[in-house]
Amino acid sequence: MDAAEFRKRGKEMVDYIADYLEKIEKRQVFPDVEPGYLRPLIPDCAPQDPESFEDVFKDIEKIIMPGAASPACTELETVMLDWLGKMINLPEEFLAGKDGQGGGVIQGSASEATLISLLAARTKTIRRVQLEKPELTEADIMGRLVAYASDQAHSSVERAALIGGVKIKNVSSDDTFSVCGSALKKVLDEDKASGLIPFFFCATLGTTPCCSFDKLLELGPICNKENIWMHIDAAYAGSAFICPEFRHLLNGVEFADSFNFNPHKWLLVNFDCSAMWVKKRSDLTGAFKLEPLYLQHHHQESGNFINKLDYYYFHWQIPLGRRFRSLKLWFVLRMYGVTGLQEHIRKHVRLSHQFEHLVLQDERFEICAEVVLGLVCFRLKGSNELNKALLKSINEAKKIHLVPCHLRETFVLRFAICSRTVESTHIKFAWQHISQLATALLKTWEEL
Amino acid sequence: MDAAEFRKRGKEMVDYIADYLEKIEKRQVFPDVEPGYLRPLIPDCAPQDPESFEDVFKDIEKIIMPGAASPACTELETVMLDWLGKMINLPEEFLAGKDGQGGGVIQGSASEATLISLLAARTKTIRRVQLEKPELTEADIMGRLVAYASDQAHSSVERAALIGGVKIKNVSSDDTFSVCGSALKKVLDEDKASGLIPFFFCATLGTTPCCSFDKLLELGPICNKENIWMHIDAAYAGSAFICPEFRHLLNGVEFADSFNFNPHKWLLVNFDCSAMWVKKRSDLTGAFKLEPLYLQHHHQESGNFINKLDYYYFHWQIPLGRRFRSLKLWFVLRMYGVTGLQEHIRKHVRLSHQFEHLVLQDERFEICAEVVLGLVCFRLKGSNELNKALLKSINEAKKIHLVPCHLRETFVLRFAICSRTVESTHIKFAWQHISQLATALLKTWEEL
Repeated sequence: MDAAEFRKRGKEMVDYIADYLEKIEKRQVFPDVEPGYLRPLIPDCAPQDPESFEDVFKDIEKIIMPGAASPACTELETVMLDWLGKMINLPEEFLAGKDGQGGGVIQGSASEATLISLLAARTKTIRRVQLEKPELTEADIMGRLVAYASDQAHSSVERAALIGGVKIKNVSSDDTFSVCGSALKKVLDEDKASGLIPFFFCATLGTTPCCSFDKLLELGPICNKENIWMHIDAAYAGSAFICPEFRHLLNGVEFADSFNFNPHKWLLVNFDCSAMWVKKRSDLTGAFKLEPLYLQHHHQESGNFINKLDYYYFHWQIPLGRRFRSLKLWFVLRMYGVTGLQEHIRKHVRLSHQFEHLVLQDERFEICAEVVLGLVCFRLKGSNELNKALLKSINEAKKIHLVPCHLRETFVLRFAICSRTVESTHIKFAWQHISQLATALLKTWEEL
Repeated sequence: MDAAEFRKRGKEMVDYIADYLEKIEKRQVFPDVEPGYLRPLIPDCAPQDPESFEDVFKDIEKIIMPGAASPACTELETVMLDWLGKMINLPEEFLAGKDGQGGGVIQGSASEATLISLLAARTKTIRRVQLEKPELTEADIMGRLVAYASDQAHSSVERAALIGGVKIKNVSSDDTFSVCGSALKKVLDEDKASGLIPFFFCATLGTTPCCSFDKLLELGPICNKENIWMHIDAAYAGSAFICPEFRHLLNGVEFADSFNFNPHKWLLVNFDCSAMWVKKRSDLTGAFKLEPLYLQHHHQESGNFINKLDYYYFHWQIPLGRRFRSLKLWFVLRMYGVTGLQEHIRKHVRLSHQFEHLVLQDERFEICAEVVLGLVCFRLKGSNELNKALLKSINEAKKIHLVPCHLRETFVLRFAICSRTVESTHIKFAWQHISQLATALLKTWEEL
């Protein structure tokens, strides 16, 4: 949708809301629908080709309004997460379908998805160990639990462990910044030998520093064998899995207990929208289930059939209240269609390779990690200080903006393709700009 | 703002966004402002009288855009929470001001505020006890920690303890469904005697079932003396404290470590916007502080001065990403003014008393708890079954919608004044409707 269409459609939406407000007293205070009403009204999967705004817009009154905020909010979310799961070819166990044991939910951020899965794993492990070793108290067990993640993993994994009150250890990544099976096995063996209880491994697909990928096909079987919950954090990279040529990066997801990626990062959905799936939703409800009386009555006894599913999402997240975030997913998936979103991903990956080639053609520079998706890690051949000076010069000019990282001891510049409207000309402009600043910097540097 | 003005202003906003998108390449990629730039540009407190939409709208380009998303998002939030804190006459220790030790933050829900404060209390207590009794391990201490809340408290308190991996106990409320000092003291003494470590008490102002108020002036000094973190959950009731005649309900907040209420519940701000303050923000940062390299560099070394405050909010919540929720607070506080919001609260309280009087005039009914704010707990004199049947009949008619509760063993109907546009005629309509359904029900009931 370009700015001109946005003007038109945005104003239609404003009128729709104003009409709704003006006529609100004519609407019923509580919906007539039965739980599960929504799924039969919409297709089983996202459309391949884009639909028009009118088509989606018309469905608001037809499909959403009869279900009001509840149960429409919950049901659309469940179905949209099934759509999205199918788009990345997630194993069927992760989908809710009509009577699956898995399913998806929208969280606010990958941090929350990691935390929720760690907490579910914690409860599940405590219960299992209590059965096996009744002499241990819950506090004893808590004190021995250990979570694991790559030394390249996002800080939110460490934070989840901190919140959950459990130990966390880094697993060393290899030369390609990926965790392989032997590295995990080594630390597990050591920890088990010293009486600790490994219970959670967070694999990363597309690490923040350099977009590296942990080796799921090696790690998954180890986790399954050792009764360790495997969560996959693919916050950024996950969107790419809608393209068949990138789907192999997700191979091994079949071993995972939970999986997460953020459509708000790279699938044109506005922040926040973090999609999380679990194989057994009873693992989540088991971790969080509380039954306050006023909710029990609201949902069960009072004759208000509504909200069985909503009540159910209540156990999937930390807050009780929920926004209607699946609406934006519904709009985006339909208005772009799968093919439109694939084009978006492919354009970004193409542009990152364009940038990579420009870097490689300039012998003053080097590429620091394999370019797989939309991130290019590069640097001037030379000291960290030189590269820090280059970054400073780039960011102070404020034509483009780069966020750096360390790969081991090496200071690296990260060129990330982000914008919906980015084109090849922007890449050329950026490279020319960086190249000129580098020339100026190297001149000063040599003079010193 | 009525629907007609919403049409006009909504469309202006659509155009503003479209213009922004069309001209985005002319904007600088990174702001020029220094941290702290925003506070001097706006008043110290919310306006008493309403301002026009134009005035607020003009300030977007003038005040927000020069600070882009960062640091404007953080700085506006800090200042808005100071505005809001002043509106409810929160002790100055809770405000950020120019160099205070406290401050406010927007969370998504009261559940998150409770969880964050419980986690901060947990870390603080573990550190203190480790100093006092170095022979105890962290797991030993965790196993002895106990949190407390009223038997009327929201289920999210129990859930916070579950997540934090600590015990939680109910404190018995009195005849008015309030927790008093002696009830807390009793359970603390018992638990300390058996070797447990009380560390957290969540007081409720405005409980979910019947809007009762825990006795802060008795509870606060006990918590302070016993080194127990007192958090106050005033999710619904907190908005009323902007009216001087209701502010006394908050007396005793000076003893608290953290306080929370939800402007999205009763202050005309759209969901989600849960306002939380702490006296010592170092207690939060102490609980969550992690320093991932890519953030360190982004904020400290790379010459990007921005985000010191944002970085700082990073330790105040579970997700890393943040939406720009303070904007809606800014708009609402200015467009209503303090007086407009006070009128809104007062109207709701007046209407709840109107409903209360209607109930009291009908001798078939009784009021079940003191009506303090916008909630009326009432029932037919008679059995729980009779009242369940009445609720069923009300909710099946779908003219109005009630959510019930239990007060001790008594099944109670809750009439909650919620809508922005509710008027006296709606109350009369609702009562007449309930009264007619009761007449019909009682007739059937007698026949049986």
